[in-house]
Amino acid sequence: MWPGEAHSIKVEKILYKEKSEYQEVLVFESLTYGKVLVLDGIVQLTEKDECAYQEMIAHLPLCSILSPKTVLVVGGGDGGVLREISRHSSVEHIDICEIDKMVIDVSRKFFPELAVGFDDPRVHLHVGDAIEFLRRAPEGRYDAVIVDSSDPVGPAQELVEKPFFETISKALRPGGVLCNMAESMWLHTHLIQDMISICRQTFKGSVHYAWTSVPTYPSGVIGFLLCSTEGPHVDFVNPINPIEKLEGADKRGRKLRFYNSEIHSAAFALPAFLKSEVRLLRDYSRQ
Amino acid sequence: MWPGEAHSIKVEKILYKEKSEYQEVLVFESLTYGKVLVLDGIVQLTEKDECAYQEMIAHLPLCSILSPKTVLVVGGGDGGVLREISRHSSVEHIDICEIDKMVIDVSRKFFPELAVGFDDPRVHLHVGDAIEFLRRAPEGRYDAVIVDSSDPVGPAQELVEKPFFETISKALRPGGVLCNMAESMWLHTHLIQDMISICRQTFKGSVHYAWTSVPTYPSGVIGFLLCSTEGPHVDFVNPINPIEKLEGADKRGRKLRFYNSEIHSAAFALPAFLKSEVRLLRDYSRQ
Repeated sequence: MWPGEAHSIKVEKILYKEKSEYQEVLVFESLTYGKVLVLDGIVQLTEKDECAYQEMIAHLPLCSILSPKTVLVVGGGDGGVLREISRHSSVEHIDICEIDKMVIDVSRKFFPELAVGFDDPRVHLHVGDAIEFLRRAPEGRYDAVIVDSSDPVGPAQELVEKPFFETISKALRPGGVLCNMAESMWLHTHLIQDMISICRQTFKGSVHYAWTSVPTYPSGVIGFLLCSTEGPHVDFVNPINPIEKLEGADKRGRKLRFYNSEIHSAAFALPAFLKSEVRLLRDYSRQ
Repeated sequence: MWPGEAHSIKVEKILYKEKSEYQEVLVFESLTYGKVLVLDGIVQLTEKDECAYQEMIAHLPLCSILSPKTVLVVGGGDGGVLREISRHSSVEHIDICEIDKMVIDVSRKFFPELAVGFDDPRVHLHVGDAIEFLRRAPEGRYDAVIVDSSDPVGPAQELVEKPFFETISKALRPGGVLCNMAESMWLHTHLIQDMISICRQTFKGSVHYAWTSVPTYPSGVIGFLLCSTEGPHVDFVNPINPIEKLEGADKRGRKLRFYNSEIHSAAFALPAFLKSEVRLLRDYSRQ
């Protein structure tokens, strides 16, 4: 997905390497980024910078709606997104649908700081195919859906296609929100353009793109597609459910390391090249 | 400066490799980033992403003050910062002090899109030591000083020390501004803390940190230290001299590729870990 460049992290020790039913799962101890989880050769997270990704993908959508109660996580088998969702006391029910049980087991063993997310009693784990799971979900079931998938190769390929977004849209309540991992603005503008185009057809509320810095992802950034269904207006850029009340530590004493309200709004400021290349002009959202 | 990791860019062809009086200068054609300039083994710029760095380091300070007229660039021998300063029609005089003539010559030969900055008749080139140049500068000479140095190893070592910042402060008019390249928030928090601490003693106006995404810099980000001298208040976060009037093409038809007003303000939103690690709390600035 990123020809012509490579990012290398020095391996101190390989801790785990197995082939699951879906992919190769690798964990190693690095010199400066802590432990690293790699799926099919692609870095998924490091202990040093996972905070940026997990906090942004969880709080961008959940701080944009009042009192989120029911949340679905697609993928996210490491548990980090669950850990962040748990900070929201309004949440009553969290479904997570991860296809690869080995990712969960590996995270429980090597990344307890992330897998701790599974220990929340509000969490209901479903190991299986997310598209099947979403098809069976009652219409309007969720306030928020968070798609924490790997890149759209291998098991995640279907997760950038229109039927997938349509099932998500149906599973959301009116004015419900989707936050979908959406690649690098520097490397994958065409993929981003495709996703935005599909989501614009599918989500009748608004469609926004946000980005943040994650050093160990290609080009050092990762994007998020934020969409809302028809219904009560969602102002993604100026969150209605600000995080300040969460800025203390969570129940386990873990403070937010990356996210805050300013970072939330700032994430929607897009470079000139992205605005023109993916035609993400103001009239692109239906606000 | 960044142990335990490496970023590799595929070399298609080495175009130039010489030792100057100060450093090793290398230019190569890459597979996906265009031509790349490397000094002492450290990537300085690539054609693909130079826009982010050059536009931010120039427009963050120049859009923060009304009608900048006199500007000094320290380093910046590739000419890219000059190209961006040239967009500001209020500017009457631009001094640039670059220590290594080979960088200028190489840029003229291999990076005409950047070196074009030298062709502006307002530009006055001084090849030599910036600290000497600043010592001889009349007090209060400049509205803005932009320090586009390489990392503080080799010839740029003195450029993070207190005497350097003091000479800059003296060379600025009251309410004048400094924008200084300031490393990666993910990798060099101690260096950033040191620079902020020195600048807080030296600049009696305000001291702010901003950052942006540059894929080919270590950890994919670069920071900027924005300081103002005592005098008319400078609101760096909400620029008084907005760029909208510049958003068309410059005289040569080159549009802004990265910078816009939203990106300007967003650059000052800092992650939670940086706020706590470098104690960049609100009371840190003198606003």
